[in-house]
Parts: sequence; structure tokens; C-alpha cells
Amino acid sequence: MYSESVKKLIGEFEKLPGIGHKSAVRLAFYILESDETAAKNMADALLEAKQKVKFCTKCFNLAESDLCEICSNNKRDESTICVVENVKDVAAMEKTHEFKGLYHVLHGAISPMNNISANDIKIKELVSRLSDDRIKEVILATNPTIEGEATAMYISRIIKTIPGVKVSRIAHGIPVGGDLEYTDEITLIKAMENRREM
Amino acid sequence: MYSESVKKLIGEFEKLPGIGHKSAVRLAFYILESDETAAKNMADALLEAKQKVKFCTKCFNLAESDLCEICSNNKRDESTICVVENVKDVAAMEKTHEFKGLYHVLHGAISPMNNISANDIKIKELVSRLSDDRIKEVILATNPTIEGEATAMYISRIIKTIPGVKVSRIAHGIPVGGDLEYTDEITLIKAMENRREM
Repeated sequence: MYSESVKKLIGEFEKLPGIGHKSAVRLAFYILESDETAAKNMADALLEAKQKVKFCTKCFNLAESDLCEICSNNKRDESTICVVENVKDVAAMEKTHEFKGLYHVLHGAISPMNNISANDIKIKELVSRLSDDRIKEVILATNPTIEGEATAMYISRIIKTIPGVKVSRIAHGIPVGGDLEYTDEITLIKAMENRREM
Repeated sequence: MYSESVKKLIGEFEKLPGIGHKSAVRLAFYILESDETAAKNMADALLEAKQKVKFCTKCFNLAESDLCEICSNNKRDESTICVVENVKDVAAMEKTHEFKGLYHVLHGAISPMNNISANDIKIKELVSRLSDDRIKEVILATNPTIEGEATAMYISRIIKTIPGVKVSRIAHGIPVGGDLEYTDEITLIKAMENRREM
């Protein structure tokens, strides 16, 4: 029903996460119906971002030069590294304006189901950063999923063999504003386990 | 928090219909985290589609040459024109495999609220097509919204002055598989008005 080039455009939109076939068709038609510049601007933005944005050589966050903005900011606390799965997690954490340390982006989590082993993510790079004496604590902020937990477990075992570096895991529990009634069992169990004296 | 080129990419995704800020950030990060070719393929598809796909000079549907596939198909019934608001509506109608006539895409609907008058959409072009004696009926399939109804009304008044051309409106009512309980009042009123003897 659609011509080859329209099908190709729909196909490209469909590759994006969370975009199904119907949404992809809608987006493709939006581009086709809007003026020339819409497609051109978008194509330019894609190419420019991809060309300019690299990964920080130290923490593997997004960066436009060798080091990312956080690693090159000398006001950050160099004694703490927060380990996250993805660059999006850095952005989420930065929004809190609470954490002043550095990051380390693993670019994934260990997942035997998806054939992702410890060597496929940036664990070696994290361990080699720890040879720097200034680092006192590593906070494991991988997601509370099976893969995230396994990754945290794996990394914590390695770090425990390095003297002078503390390793911790972010807390799991009922989210603020959440409702006990609608909280899943695993979260409730975690929330009970991690209870604090008042 | 994000660099200029990342912000620009997020901004471009945000312009797409149905994509809010959070989704735009997710899509931008997907592109930044995937390999070089993802961005390149998408940029190419955008530019290629926009370059190749034009509008049919007769019915204003999408076309890769002067006439669209439907207008250039001599098996279609040239006596009936189905008038729709957008090219997406042509695709929706074609999926039924029922309508064998031609189309006319208005590219919008009359909407004084949004400063869209009859001259801003392809009404003149529709009227000039009707000078062709072969056309016997115009089916108005604009959306059942205030704008769509107003547009249908406006066009039907013009066509009624042209001898030999019948004008009709697609039926509105409860959708097949729909539920009376969840049908809005206006649709129910329409469904009652348009009742048919059995």
C-alpha cells in the first residue's frame, strides 16, 4: 500500500524503543505532510549528535570531548563513584542535585539470557579506575532487576578484594508517595528487610 | 545537563506528534547509545522519503510520480470520489479493500479556531475535478469532529449546485464491537438519527 521509501521510513521509526507499527506510520506521515525543513532538521540533528557525542574515556557517560562534563568538573567529589547501567541513569541521578561524586556507566548489565557477560560491559574499566587512591566508596546503583542485582553482586565481590574501597548498594523500598496496597511483594519484602530504626 | 547537540536532537524528537519530553529523551539516548549506522540509516530514510514522495497532482495523496498509485490505476472506478482530510485516511480506507473509487485529500479541515479557511485546504481543486462528466458521486469522509462536519457541510453546499453529481456523507454511529454503555451521547444521538428499518 505504501511506496518503498515510505515503508523504509516507517521501518526506521519502528526500530525506536516504544514505537510500534501504528505510531511509526503516524510519525512517518507527519514527516511526509510537513514542509521540507522538518525532515532536513531532524536528519541534521541525528547526524550532528551522533558525530559530536562520544563516550567519556573515564566514566563512559556521554561527552563532547575526551572527558564528560562531570569528570572534567573539579568541584565534584572524586572519592565516590556511582555505578549505573545507562547514561539515562546519570541524567536521572543528576536531576536530584544531591550526589556530588563521579559516575561510571556500565552500558548494560550482566544477563546470561541475552548473552551479556561481565566482559561485555565496562566492569574492567571500573576496576582499573579503583587503583586511584582517592576513591573511597563505590555506590552500586544498577536497576533493581534480576540483571541489575546480579551485576551489583558481581561487582561488589570484586571490589571487596580491593583494600580501602567501601562498596554500597542504593536502597530499595516503597517509592515516596507510593501505596502499600499497590506495591509488589518483592518490593515489600525489600522494604521490610531494609527497615530503619526511628 | 545535556550538551547542545543532544538538546537539539531531543528537541527534534519532541516536535513529532505524540512524543513528549520524556519519550524524546528516551529516543535521543537510544540513538546516542546505538551504533553509527542507526542514526545514519534514519537520517537517510528521512531525506530519501522527503525527496521522493510528493503529492499526487490530481488527488493530493502521497505519490512518487505525478499521479499516485490509485489515480494511475485504470481499474479504479472513476465515477466516485471519496473526500478525506489526510493521507492517513486514504490508507485507512484502502485497508478495507471495499472502496474502488478515487480519493481527494483535503490536507486539513476548515477550522476558524486555527485560522484554517476553505481556501487553505484543497477544496477548489476538488471542485475543479468535478467538471469531469465521469464523476457521479462525492462521498464526504471527513472526520466526525466539529471541523470535519463543518467542512463536509461547506463542500456539500457547493456540490449541490453542480448538476449530475450526488453528494453523500459516511455514516456515524456505534462502532462495530462497541458498547452502548461506553458510547458518548453525540454518537448515540447520531446512531438513533441514522437508524435503518430492518
